[in-house]
Amino acid sequence: MKRTLLLTPGPTQVPARLCEVLGRPIIHHRTPQFQAFLKEAVEGLKYVLKTQNDVYVLASSGTGAMEASVVSLLSSGDSALVVEGGKFGERWTELCKAYGVKATVIKVQWGKSVDPAEIKKALDADKSIKAVFVTHSETSTGTNSDIEGIGKVVKNCAAVLVVDAVSGLGVQDLQTDNWHVDVVCSAAHKGLMLPPGVAFISVSAKADALMAQSKLPKYYFDLRKYKKAWTQVDTPFTPAIGIVIALVESLKMIKETGIDNMLSHYARLAKATRAAALGLGLTLFADESAISNVLTAVKLPEGIDGDKVLKMMRDTHGISVAPGQDAIKGKVIRIAHMGVIDEYDILTGIACLEKVLKQLGHKFEMGAGVAAAQKVLNP
Amino acid sequence: MKRTLLLTPGPTQVPARLCEVLGRPIIHHRTPQFQAFLKEAVEGLKYVLKTQNDVYVLASSGTGAMEASVVSLLSSGDSALVVEGGKFGERWTELCKAYGVKATVIKVQWGKSVDPAEIKKALDADKSIKAVFVTHSETSTGTNSDIEGIGKVVKNCAAVLVVDAVSGLGVQDLQTDNWHVDVVCSAAHKGLMLPPGVAFISVSAKADALMAQSKLPKYYFDLRKYKKAWTQVDTPFTPAIGIVIALVESLKMIKETGIDNMLSHYARLAKATRAAALGLGLTLFADESAISNVLTAVKLPEGIDGDKVLKMMRDTHGISVAPGQDAIKGKVIRIAHMGVIDEYDILTGIACLEKVLKQLGHKFEMGAGVAAAQKVLNP
Repeated sequence: MKRTLLLTPGPTQVPARLCEVLGRPIIHHRTPQFQAFLKEAVEGLKYVLKTQNDVYVLASSGTGAMEASVVSLLSSGDSALVVEGGKFGERWTELCKAYGVKATVIKVQWGKSVDPAEIKKALDADKSIKAVFVTHSETSTGTNSDIEGIGKVVKNCAAVLVVDAVSGLGVQDLQTDNWHVDVVCSAAHKGLMLPPGVAFISVSAKADALMAQSKLPKYYFDLRKYKKAWTQVDTPFTPAIGIVIALVESLKMIKETGIDNMLSHYARLAKATRAAALGLGLTLFADESAISNVLTAVKLPEGIDGDKVLKMMRDTHGISVAPGQDAIKGKVIRIAHMGVIDEYDILTGIACLEKVLKQLGHKFEMGAGVAAAQKVLNP
Repeated sequence: MKRTLLLTPGPTQVPARLCEVLGRPIIHHRTPQFQAFLKEAVEGLKYVLKTQNDVYVLASSGTGAMEASVVSLLSSGDSALVVEGGKFGERWTELCKAYGVKATVIKVQWGKSVDPAEIKKALDADKSIKAVFVTHSETSTGTNSDIEGIGKVVKNCAAVLVVDAVSGLGVQDLQTDNWHVDVVCSAAHKGLMLPPGVAFISVSAKADALMAQSKLPKYYFDLRKYKKAWTQVDTPFTPAIGIVIALVESLKMIKETGIDNMLSHYARLAKATRAAALGLGLTLFADESAISNVLTAVKLPEGIDGDKVLKMMRDTHGISVAPGQDAIKGKVIRIAHMGVIDEYDILTGIACLEKVLKQLGHKFEMGAGVAAAQKVLNP
């Protein structure tokens, strides 16, 4: 009879309407019927990405889309600029390193976001930089990047702007075209509410030109193959058919609500979550100026182990949040408010956190968290 | 009210029992609950692969597993031997080329299979060959390779034997350990009856030693990362959670029947399909000595276009078979007998083929195909 609630930054909960689609008999992918689904999925992704750029659909996790951008854009020995303010920023550096791309790294303190002026300085200092790799919402810290500001800087350079929006897409605003983002890497199991297995990537004309020159070795993640296959409304390799078909339905749900209404909804839930944490005498990990609406990293008081909080919430109460990683392991928990989550889910998560914190000896007035959230939700 | 029947070599039909699992709410992958599923999936895959080797699970199509083997085993400039007797053999050559691996190619006429003595000759002629890439069941032609014979040759060399068993696993016998196969690449949407999105790969100790020396650039398909993650019963990147959980159920179904009973079942269906084709006055594309139990490529008479046959079967009657590719496009249709397919499905497919052939003017006695199949099925 135990409730199950995922307040985790991917996978997120799959709505019943999508579960039903995922449970349907499979169809073959080289059919007009599947082509219609693929076309509709790509159109829907363009709507969520706010772009007219080409969008390619991959069968992989989000990291696959990130790798596709590196290997499809660059050549060995090329220079790139990476912004590293958490685990996922580090992934860009690792990918560059794996493929012999010379990465200049701007290290940002965890919980803060990069100042676009820093990027301008680095681009001015090295005109050979071909790509700038940044993270939209850094899931490990709950921070948000100023992609609009970064876009303004990069659009005037030869370099392309590549954004990892795996966890943030559909939750925190990303205006691909208005903000001059050349490549967006994302996946369907975060804001798009599906099981993992589908990633996708949007490519601007500027990035497409760079792609034509790329010499890094590649095959499965060679976006030129996807571009060519797309002229026949096809994919070069077997797509994750079932998830792509469910993606069409998920994108319909998002269109029915309206993407900007979705973003406002998550902003409201994030604000309530932050208020709840403060109401319990806890503090937020991310800087106020850089705070993300995708998830909230909450610092725990000295003497309370975050991993223990997570285990008690999950194993006793069925409510999952995410742990701190690396240097902040055990020191924070991360509460995601993304996917099919409403205000009552947030209140449920906070109520469970209160219960567990009380058991672990944290001093606060029982109910202070849910009350603070409720005030924000009903101003 | 139209029936839907997939007699295609992947995706194959998803049994209702698995559809139900695919439609369940998602769980998080970094939990003891998912770890239990992943462990059970790997154990089940070892059973089907007939191996004690390590098995790693990827979120990709089957090609991803093939790429993982190339990039994880080899270094730029290494020599490899590739057997090419169809589209999927060619994929090995393309992968080697993409990564700067020097491939010596044994070209085999489409519809025939390689003589292991040819492989021995090539290995004797070039001792620097580090890997031999072959195809278990060549889906484009309906031929089967003598993996046992090839294994006997390769086991005595420094080279490792890498087998693409994407379409044939669980349908045509593959005794990984007994036959000395170092690496098997496969996927879950063929014999294992699931939607596409999960691939997997088994790695012997001999291949593991080669992996340690590999210098090709890689990240998502770096099997060393999968090996390391597996020590914590984890995957380095988000797995296709929903499909992995359904895979546990699919493997249970296979165990309940017994893998060798499954193989005999498909051998029987293949024999009936071949008899039906001959009964209709058609011929088989693959050489009798090399014929596969996975799918039957049937040659069409002069003047009858296979692509038209396929479209009429699919669009009018809801029954899907696969087309001929490249040089044999339009000249054959390929009827798969894999996954959750029984003798009545085969009779249905043949009956539909008869109906369409009659409409297209082929001369035969109506019912001769189903009668020939029925005789084989009930000797």
